[in-house]
Amino acid sequence: MSEQDKNDALWGGRFQDAPEEFTQEFGASLPVDQRLWRSDIAGSIAHAKMLARQDIISDEDADAIVDGLNRIAADIESGDFDFDIADEDIHMAIERRLTEMIGEAGGRLHTGRSRNDQVATDTRHCCKQLAEGLMSQVNDLRATLIALAERELGTIMPGYTHLQKAQPVLFSHHILAYYWMFTRDFGRLRFAYAAADVLPLGSAALAGTTYPLDRDLIAEELDFSSVSPNSMDAVSDRDFVCDLTYAASVAMMHLSRLCEELILWSSDEFGFITLSDAYATGSSIMPQKKNPDFAELIRGKTGRVYGDLMALLTTLKALPLAYDKDMQEDKEGLFDAVDTLSSSLAVMGGMLQTLTVNAERMAEGAKGGFMAATDLADYLVGQGMAFREAHAIIGKLVLDCEQRGVTLQDLSAEELAAVDEHLDEGALAALDLEKIVAARTTDGGTGNEAVTAQLRTAKETLQDDQLGMLT
Amino acid sequence: MSEQDKNDALWGGRFQDAPEEFTQEFGASLPVDQRLWRSDIAGSIAHAKMLARQDIISDEDADAIVDGLNRIAADIESGDFDFDIADEDIHMAIERRLTEMIGEAGGRLHTGRSRNDQVATDTRHCCKQLAEGLMSQVNDLRATLIALAERELGTIMPGYTHLQKAQPVLFSHHILAYYWMFTRDFGRLRFAYAAADVLPLGSAALAGTTYPLDRDLIAEELDFSSVSPNSMDAVSDRDFVCDLTYAASVAMMHLSRLCEELILWSSDEFGFITLSDAYATGSSIMPQKKNPDFAELIRGKTGRVYGDLMALLTTLKALPLAYDKDMQEDKEGLFDAVDTLSSSLAVMGGMLQTLTVNAERMAEGAKGGFMAATDLADYLVGQGMAFREAHAIIGKLVLDCEQRGVTLQDLSAEELAAVDEHLDEGALAALDLEKIVAARTTDGGTGNEAVTAQLRTAKETLQDDQLGMLT
Amino acid sequence: MSEQDKNDALWGGRFQDAPEEFTQEFGASLPVDQRLWRSDIAGSIAHAKMLARQDIISDEDADAIVDGLNRIAADIESGDFDFDIADEDIHMAIERRLTEMIGEAGGRLHTGRSRNDQVATDTRHCCKQLAEGLMSQVNDLRATLIALAERELGTIMPGYTHLQKAQPVLFSHHILAYYWMFTRDFGRLRFAYAAADVLPLGSAALAGTTYPLDRDLIAEELDFSSVSPNSMDAVSDRDFVCDLTYAASVAMMHLSRLCEELILWSSDEFGFITLSDAYATGSSIMPQKKNPDFAELIRGKTGRVYGDLMALLTTLKALPLAYDKDMQEDKEGLFDAVDTLSSSLAVMGGMLQTLTVNAERMAEGAKGGFMAATDLADYLVGQGMAFREAHAIIGKLVLDCEQRGVTLQDLSAEELAAVDEHLDEGALAALDLEKIVAARTTDGGTGNEAVTAQLRTAKETLQDDQLGMLT
Amino acid sequence: MSEQDKNDALWGGRFQDAPEEFTQEFGASLPVDQRLWRSDIAGSIAHAKMLARQDIISDEDADAIVDGLNRIAADIESGDFDFDIADEDIHMAIERRLTEMIGEAGGRLHTGRSRNDQVATDTRHCCKQLAEGLMSQVNDLRATLIALAERELGTIMPGYTHLQKAQPVLFSHHILAYYWMFTRDFGRLRFAYAAADVLPLGSAALAGTTYPLDRDLIAEELDFSSVSPNSMDAVSDRDFVCDLTYAASVAMMHLSRLCEELILWSSDEFGFITLSDAYATGSSIMPQKKNPDFAELIRGKTGRVYGDLMALLTTLKALPLAYDKDMQEDKEGLFDAVDTLSSSLAVMGGMLQTLTVNAERMAEGAKGGFMAATDLADYLVGQGMAFREAHAIIGKLVLDCEQRGVTLQDLSAEELAAVDEHLDEGALAALDLEKIVAARTTDGGTGNEAVTAQLRTAKETLQDDQLGMLT
Repeated sequence: MSEQDKNDALWGGRFQDAPEEFTQEFGASLPVDQRLWRSDIAGSIAHAKMLARQDIISDEDADAIVDGLNRIAADIESGDFDFDIADEDIHMAIERRLTEMIGEAGGRLHTGRSRNDQVATDTRHCCKQLAEGLMSQVNDLRATLIALAERELGTIMPGYTHLQKAQPVLFSHHILAYYWMFTRDFGRLRFAYAAADVLPLGSAALAGTTYPLDRDLIAEELDFSSVSPNSMDAVSDRDFVCDLTYAASVAMMHLSRLCEELILWSSDEFGFITLSDAYATGSSIMPQKKNPDFAELIRGKTGRVYGDLMALLTTLKALPLAYDKDMQEDKEGLFDAVDTLSSSLAVMGGMLQTLTVNAERMAEGAKGGFMAATDLADYLVGQGMAFREAHAIIGKLVLDCEQRGVTLQDLSAEELAAVDEHLDEGALAALDLEKIVAARTTDGGTGNEAVTAQLRTAKETLQDDQLGMLT
Repeated sequence: MSEQDKNDALWGGRFQDAPEEFTQEFGASLPVDQRLWRSDIAGSIAHAKMLARQDIISDEDADAIVDGLNRIAADIESGDFDFDIADEDIHMAIERRLTEMIGEAGGRLHTGRSRNDQVATDTRHCCKQLAEGLMSQVNDLRATLIALAERELGTIMPGYTHLQKAQPVLFSHHILAYYWMFTRDFGRLRFAYAAADVLPLGSAALAGTTYPLDRDLIAEELDFSSVSPNSMDAVSDRDFVCDLTYAASVAMMHLSRLCEELILWSSDEFGFITLSDAYATGSSIMPQKKNPDFAELIRGKTGRVYGDLMALLTTLKALPLAYDKDMQEDKEGLFDAVDTLSSSLAVMGGMLQTLTVNAERMAEGAKGGFMAATDLADYLVGQGMAFREAHAIIGKLVLDCEQRGVTLQDLSAEELAAVDEHLDEGALAALDLEKIVAARTTDGGTGNEAVTAQLRTAKETLQDDQLGMLT
Repeated sequence: MSEQDKNDALWGGRFQDAPEEFTQEFGASLPVDQRLWRSDIAGSIAHAKMLARQDIISDEDADAIVDGLNRIAADIESGDFDFDIADEDIHMAIERRLTEMIGEAGGRLHTGRSRNDQVATDTRHCCKQLAEGLMSQVNDLRATLIALAERELGTIMPGYTHLQKAQPVLFSHHILAYYWMFTRDFGRLRFAYAAADVLPLGSAALAGTTYPLDRDLIAEELDFSSVSPNSMDAVSDRDFVCDLTYAASVAMMHLSRLCEELILWSSDEFGFITLSDAYATGSSIMPQKKNPDFAELIRGKTGRVYGDLMALLTTLKALPLAYDKDMQEDKEGLFDAVDTLSSSLAVMGGMLQTLTVNAERMAEGAKGGFMAATDLADYLVGQGMAFREAHAIIGKLVLDCEQRGVTLQDLSAEELAAVDEHLDEGALAALDLEKIVAARTTDGGTGNEAVTAQLRTAKETLQDDQLGMLT
Repeated sequence: MSEQDKNDALWGGRFQDAPEEFTQEFGASLPVDQRLWRSDIAGSIAHAKMLARQDIISDEDADAIVDGLNRIAADIESGDFDFDIADEDIHMAIERRLTEMIGEAGGRLHTGRSRNDQVATDTRHCCKQLAEGLMSQVNDLRATLIALAERELGTIMPGYTHLQKAQPVLFSHHILAYYWMFTRDFGRLRFAYAAADVLPLGSAALAGTTYPLDRDLIAEELDFSSVSPNSMDAVSDRDFVCDLTYAASVAMMHLSRLCEELILWSSDEFGFITLSDAYATGSSIMPQKKNPDFAELIRGKTGRVYGDLMALLTTLKALPLAYDKDMQEDKEGLFDAVDTLSSSLAVMGGMLQTLTVNAERMAEGAKGGFMAATDLADYLVGQGMAFREAHAIIGKLVLDCEQRGVTLQDLSAEELAAVDEHLDEGALAALDLEKIVAARTTDGGTGNEAVTAQLRTAKETLQDDQLGMLT
């Protein structure tokens, strides 16, 4: 088939000159959108069946089309399909091959549809699969976090604000904080899934079609929950791509926060965890190095997913209706965002499953930083002092300790009493780290019982989400 | 009150030097977060009542606190409250004033909470109001779009793809495409509302508290649907701010697309609409100009909302738990995004309500561009020809007409028949624009009946959303 | 070579477990950075020669290394080099192969350098080539714009502000506006070139090295203008990648503006230009369509380049010194930005060279929109009236004409005089479009002489830039 | 003056309806652009003088205008000028007041110019001042970094890659790495200054003007280096705003990296520095906290500057020539970026000047992490071993030490020799940290002599930049 012939096949007889090879490559979306092949074939099969059911094409034609498409699917699956950039996109690649295989019946497949509604349908169909896959992976990570929190129940570490030691917390509590972030990511992905779950097929180029299509039939066949209510919106809407890319951006943000902590905790200074060798790398020049490369890479890849989101929003800005070629740029960034999140989730899962928690280093760290100060102030408040006054007294005591190089726990009952008469023997007990942690009994607090209850809720939530994933 | 005293009041006795004025201003969030005052006072009242109910403070103290806070609210409302940058933030400004007014009972208000959970609570409370306001405004715009579509039912205009005339469509159909975009924006805002609707109070600085707080009581008082399950997540989570900023970004993208079209349609070349004088401006040098400034401004402001989203995501990237001061940067961008969207929605509503549709110019425009070509091709397909072949024949015919400077409608039956034997008398009828539009009968198509049905659905959807806005 | 052996080879004996395949792929930069192979080999040859000159390695070793690297270069060039993901990056891929080829001398190549300074050197070397290529392409486009402006000298078109007709301008003047944008892009690219033109080699991992390297010698051999002054900065600096990506972003912004205009001008409504068939495409369903796909694609791709910039800046934010793995993410976005700009420049060049200017449509357009109004107001000012008053009088006249459906040129001397006594016969002459254009005689104005002078300056500027491109 | 009158004054008689208050506020740029007042008045004075010199207005008019403008400047300076949102922008506010003051001569000031070239001129004039101010501040910070490096010369700290201890470095070397970053920022700001340094006045609305303006005269008076070569480009170009915002973005990125390190170093775990009380804050609940709030705020504000850049680029995308109202959005983001950078530079300067370096903690830290490993490996290479082999041997030794809980320095000569025969007595010397640092003698290395030389170069570079700041 000559270039001119292909050109004719594509755009009819409108054009006198053949596009040159360079512009062909520039204009082609095939290298990116060939990933839609499963969705494209599924959509075409559903369309063909409907066309036959509505007597728009014959049953023979429909059978030939379905059979041909299934053979093409098998060829692509097995790597025997020859993708040719001259086909411009996956839709044309498959349709051209179909026509080669089954003759003019292949040409009838396109009856009542346009590339505009076809590409929207394929992209939505694909987005649903991608969202579903990510939801499942996010749930796996949530399960990993629960398992880690459960395994390490009882380990005390310093809790930080401003990267300054603040109050002692359970390591499990800290880890469960991430569980809830990813629980929200699950919700965001489910929203993106629902956003994609609307069938545009039947909108044709922009105005609908004169063929008596049964759009509900296609929706049922392709497992879409509803059909689009406006044909112009249907071909110009890419909100669902934004929604999925946004969901990926926030999930990457969460991963970047966890990575930051894993990197900190792996440092010689913190020493709270040891990454397994499988999730760290060495240096080509420094033999002693064990670098948290994978955590750094995930953190670094956060930027690219943000960039994908910004690219998409920028591309869509100020586009007049209904379809503009700019929108061809929607898929590459989406795929990049989804793939980046997907592999990052997998790597994070492995990293968490294989790391070692250095409970002793954590416990040792929890003794530093005067973290009992709040409880000592609270003790004074319990004695009837106003909080601000108690805060001021303890603040001065901390400063004094710091200058003398001692911790609060080093203070004797006498020294405490000398600071303020209310700092009696009960004050000594208020300095015990285990008791301090245990005393945070409010819902959602770091107290052991509260965390045990939280773990139970987390498991239930996860189970609910796993069961009713797409409902 | 001296600087040093204020400093002492804030941070207890920990500090030896007073921050200088410049750093005070740099660090203060008061100019931005004073907007949270209603939420802050509502939250403090709920907290005080709960503390008394739980016997953590006395009823007298609680009454004094509630009374004092109500008086402060009245002062702020009436402009009699003196905001002082030395107070650093709205929370301290109100608490300091309260203590001035009611003495040491004021200091007991802070029992069992921290600025970390307080600011998270205020921000969530405020986000709910902001989201609700935007939802209501979006619904107003949807109603405006429905009214415009209804008013102009029957007006035919050219439908475009690639800014090239493609197929004639009903103006109402085109306008309703935007109705569905904003319907999705409503859904995105509702998601953001729900994301904010979780109470963090009771999480204290990061670890929970030792006081026997009843968090459900506060949630009920403040109308939050649930309480946060993890104290560290509660103070470090700003997903809900992202969600609202993202929802605003997509809505601005939709507005920018509509603006682009209003600008095009207002141009001398299109001439499809005339903006009212109230929504256009003149030129300081060119007396004849009537510029669609407001549409341009909304389009231009899309960038800033994207920027707000990017700023927020970037700020949150890689922050370790639990609270970091970087997060103080969350509100300014959010407020900017919300305010920009809010005023843009209002301006767009006014612009749409007051514009004049030039139906004749639209109709005239619909005759150009060979837009009947698809239907002529379809006519051939109806005669049994394969679509691709029909497409090629009509493509060549269009090229021929273009070179001769005639439209398809100028062709005689003989000329048509000379092109292809299938182009018989029925082909002439296929060139009538009204019939072409009416023939798009599929659900969501531009056919008059389909659009009437679509209008009905749109109204029902809007009514449902208005009724059950937050459920 | 087993995985374990490769692992040992890379990271010495530090690791007990081999990374699994998945993490290997996640961590590997080879698919992206293999593009650096020319720079890597050039850098290694320069390093080896210097090592020998400084007696750090023997001349025999150096010869073997240089010879081996040249053979590897030939293999890669001819496609005979087997890239193996297990090599992680291009540097290791080449070094491993070198050691296979020449034995232990290959291992000595890495003396006194680290992957950190090696990758920085390669990236800078590559950036210089990329910037140079883009500078050359930008100059080609500038030449195309000059040629187009020269060819169409004399063609009058409407000049727009707010997409409203404002004043008539020469088409050549409009086109030259873009010339100056791309002239600034040339400057921005030259800045980025200079930013990259600093040699980091010799900085080793972060601290410099104990070997007596002669860094100036390498700089001279590799054609770098200077050596980096601080080893920690040298391995952590990616400003030059930002600079090049930023330069690409602004250039894409300029292209997007030109594309927007080409799309508008190609519309049926404007009709100012006709794109050649080679730079437009048809529709799969609408036979009459001739879509400005390539202009739309370039416009759409602007978003992705912005996204690349945002990704890069986000990734670099808050990274501690000296090298973090996050920085591995620097290259993919850069290459994408450069490639996108490069192909967009090429497509734009072809599009401009082959488009047809419809001078008659432009002239016709220039008659509409009351564009002579400013000159008529100026005429009144010339008669001694204050500008604001004149502006008001002409504004009312335009409104009157508009309501009567006539243009300013349709007015008789009597009608003019009736408006204001100063509107005498000279006022009629002030309405002639050619005279209006010609009268803009200030430097940089649209008057024919001014544009001719501008063209001359443009040619000189281009010639200067072409001659002294990198100086 | 009534609203309608003001409206008439602004837009002449073109409009029938007065814009409502809300749209007035939405459309007004006065709250943002009133900051341009100095530039606006300077530009108007230069314009008036030129008009008189060219005999376009009388000398009396020019004198009255200049005198009036000077009085307005004095009023604004002293806070006596009443800014009224009804004036829409600063240009109209000043011109209206001028006309009130001096009568109709005020109206003649606008002769031969438009708001389009006026606003471009003002913005460029202002950008030059802003860039100059930032350049000066950046130089101050560079001086502070030099002073800190000089003060602490000799202090050894661990150098990191991947946040893992890598090799010991001089603290001064580490600090000087930032000196070079800000040196590049100076260059980027100078580029932005030069980008702004082109006079657009004389371009009028878009096409130039018929008045015999002497643009070079204005340029000289206003200290612009050249005049814009194309009037359409002159009014639509905002590249210089992008350039300045971009320069601010990269500078913020550098600050964010330094902040990240200050935060890490202030943590209990690192303990390398102590921030002065003036640059840290306390906690409302935890009395012992001393939070690096200011470093966190600067780090957090990086996001907003990135957002400003993204907003600007997005707004400019795909805008047709010549002026579109979207461009009114250029200034707010710019001012925000400039102000954010300016205050961040000031805060960073104060923070660096007042922090305490804990040299002992740094030295102690430098002993950990097996950082002598590289030099030990190098020692083996010096003995003739291939680097990769040496790397493997030392890697195994490190692993062994780690498992035994000892450092390399704890090893006896016998233990070393038992590992490999080449690890003789010289190997013991290779483990001395001071010697290790001193041995990095290459240019740009961390060796004491190299750093001293680097300091010398840094001072010279700074002096050069200070002297020839704008040349």
